Amino acid sequence: MTVARVTEISATSDKSFEDAVNQGIDRASKTLRGVTGAWIKEQKVTVSGGSIASYQVNMMVSFVLDD
Amino acid sequence: MTVARVTEISATSDKSFEDAVNQGIDRASKTLRGVTGAWIKEQKVTVSGGSIASYQVNMMVSFVLDD
Amino acid sequence: MTVARVTEISATSDKSFEDAVNQGIDRASKTLRGVTGAWIKEQKVTVSGGSIASYQVNMMVSFVLDD
Amino acid sequence: MTVARVTEISATSDKSFEDAVNQGIDRASKTLRGVTGAWIKEQKVTVSGGSIASYQVNMMVSFVLDD
Amino acid sequence: MTVARVTEISATSDKSFEDAVNQGIDRASKTLRGVTGAWIKEQKVTVSGGSIASYQVNMMVSFVLDD
Amino acid sequence: MTVARVTEISATSDKSFEDAVNQGIDRASKTLRGVTGAWIKEQKVTVSGGSIASYQVNMMVSFVLDD
Amino acid sequence: MTVARVTEISATSDKSFEDAVNQGIDRASKTLRGVTGAWIKEQKVTVSGGSIASYQVNMMVSFVLDD
Amino acid sequence: MTVARVTEISATSDKSFEDAVNQGIDRASKTLRGVTGAWIKEQKVTVSGGSIASYQVNMMVSFVLDD
Amino acid sequence: MTVARVTEISATSDKSFEDAVNQGIDRASKTLRGVTGAWIKEQKVTVSGGSIASYQVNMMVSFVLDD
Amino acid sequence: MTVARVTEISATSDKSFEDAVNQGIDRASKTLRGVTGAWIKEQKVTVSGGSIASYQVNMMVSFVLDD
Amino acid sequence: MTVARVTEISATSDKSFEDAVNQGIDRASKTLRGVTGAWIKEQKVTVSGGSIASYQVNMMVSFVLDD
Amino acid sequence: MTVARVTEISATSDKSFEDAVNQGIDRASKTLRGVTGAWIKEQKVTVSGGSIASYQVNMMVSFVLDD
Repeated sequence: MTVARVTEISATSDKSFEDAVNQGIDRASKTLRGVTGAWIKEQKVTVSGGSIASYQVNMMVSFVLDD
Repeated sequence: MTVARVTEISATSDKSFEDAVNQGIDRASKTLRGVTGAWIKEQKVTVSGGSIASYQVNMMVSFVLDD
Repeated sequence: MTVARVTEISATSDKSFEDAVNQGIDRASKTLRGVTGAWIKEQKVTVSGGSIASYQVNMMVSFVLDD
Repeated sequence: MTVARVTEISATSDKSFEDAVNQGIDRASKTLRGVTGAWIKEQKVTVSGGSIASYQVNMMVSFVLDD
Repeated sequence: MTVARVTEISATSDKSFEDAVNQGIDRASKTLRGVTGAWIKEQKVTVSGGSIASYQVNMMVSFVLDD
Repeated sequence: MTVARVTEISATSDKSFEDAVNQGIDRASKTLRGVTGAWIKEQKVTVSGGSIASYQVNMMVSFVLDD
Repeated sequence: MTVARVTEISATSDKSFEDAVNQGIDRASKTLRGVTGAWIKEQKVTVSGGSIASYQVNMMVSFVLDD
Repeated sequence: MTVARVTEISATSDKSFEDAVNQGIDRASKTLRGVTGAWIKEQKVTVSGGSIASYQVNMMVSFVLDD
Repeated sequence: MTVARVTEISATSDKSFEDAVNQGIDRASKTLRGVTGAWIKEQKVTVSGGSIASYQVNMMVSFVLDD
Repeated sequence: MTVARVTEISATSDKSFEDAVNQGIDRASKTLRGVTGAWIKEQKVTVSGGSIASYQVNMMVSFVLDD
Repeated sequence: MTVARVTEISATSDKSFEDAVNQGIDRASKTLRGVTGAWIKEQKVTVSGGSIASYQVNMMVSFVLDD
Repeated sequence: MTVARVTEISATSDKSFEDAVNQGIDRASKTLRGVTGAWIKEQKVTVSGGSIASYQVNMMVSFVLDD
């Protein structure tokens, strides 16, 4: 038997979508033990003065619960 | 870089949907620091004796994580 | 054991969305016994001459079946 | 034969969701002729200091095209 | 007024889907007070050597928040 | 030519999801003639004191209309 | 104030999808007063011996309720 | 590099769904240059006196933007 | 016990949507034995010079597997 | 690097949904090498004479491709 | 009060998905004033001779309307 | 007339999402003739020891059928 939780994380980067995914996983792993993966739910950009200011990724992060 | 979490809150009011949204934001802000917004996911009413007994709103509440 | 039916009701009001929900619950309760609640499925407005003429709400109304 | 267009409008109010719907219909009717209605697509709130700062509604606005 | 939270739990059993639901509710109730119900979001199986190795259920678990 | 109706039924059992499906089909067949099948739309459990109190299934039941 | 119901009808024709829509509206209008429209929800064909045997359309039929 | 826009058009015909699609494409091509295609989003009928009064199709029309 | 597979087929016709459905069923039946039906998933048109050049239908085709 | 395919299987049992899942996995494993799991997409029952005649499950079956 | 419009843009690049997003934002900003962001709706590739010929991104671009 | 099939491929890379798309297209083109494109359905990461171990992309790959 394994029981895991899934929580939504939103991460923002000024470089790229994949950097945002990395930032979100890094930050989640500082607080949550046993992170096993994430499913990308949404991708957005903010625009300022006609060019992309930031990349935002919302993801569903899974982590295993201790018994 | 900003990392936020998104969590689902269900709030119930006997007055109106907007009062339910307010109650949910109030309650969430007591426990969670850095609440920035909420997206309304579902609206329901319960009915008793032919008239509305309560208004329920489920919403996805975002709050920024400290570093 | 409890068995309920769920039926879609569309109600229109010239006042507000919540008045439309109330009108729909009132009308449904005149015909159906045992209404227990409703889930809001859609909200629409009709517009005439640049301002809102009516508020329409579609909702899934639940009512318990007698044995 | 009737041909209409449907365009997404996002309107923000500091009072209520219904005020936001009204603001959006008002603004759309200033630019677009023949607005006939709108379908509510999303409802959001922004939160500041633990209470609601604004109500945002995204809606699909329909308007009839002249021949 | 009642305010509840809804969180996603993923539970795995080598017996059946309903055993997975039971395991997930058991585990959630050890950590969370006031669990009132769960909505089944996804059902999956893993397969090994041509037969089912485990049953996984993802569910949205609701629990009431204390004031 | 065949014309059928599809109606949503919600059935609750304290034993299992499949018992709930059976209860719902039994109850629907008492009122509706010509039931041909059902599509499972939602599965939920209610929880009381940390264990499952009831299994609820919402299903779309089809039945053929007489000419 | 107007209150309408919306019910799902499934109609089958051996000619075409549009004939199926017509059959379903005809049959619904025999039983239900005040049918105002229908929204096409699903289109299916059955195949027998490599060619189409029937066209099936599921539609959400709206009809106004008398006061 | 190619950049296109996608806009929603709703077209109504008293003959058939395909006539409605044709009417919508004709009307869109009068105003928009470079229409390349359309995706059917919704199909509806209005009913009057028990038979179909009009066929409505909502479609997402794509057209290429000039540089 | 019956086991079937469901596969997505995309068929294009310069005549109509129903001709596209027929072409797709014909072609699928040449390769696959035991085709029993299809569910229409998407309908699209391509446009050239302001009028419809082709009708495309994506459908989920079911066929029974031999033992 | 791993590449897998995902294919939809529909399986029918006269016993239960879980027996249908088992039948489908058994049958898929006879033809496809490297089946790793399945995601339950739909659950249906057929009804005859007022009681359940068969349980049908549609599932998305994954299997690893050889290099 | 702020009112914005949201319009769908489809952009194609032969380099990468993120280049396509950039091209689309650049092109949109040439025509539309006040672009504030975009939500990624779809990602596609076209393939020619066994390798990727272009990356296409459909996105919902928001821009603020002047009063 | 053109008839195509659409099949779901899941590809995994330890470098990036775009490398996973490329790997999947490469592998699909080895087995399937006439691949014309792919639509990205899902993006996931697996995490190990707090950082991303692999990037997984599920995509719907289209390929033209020979007559």
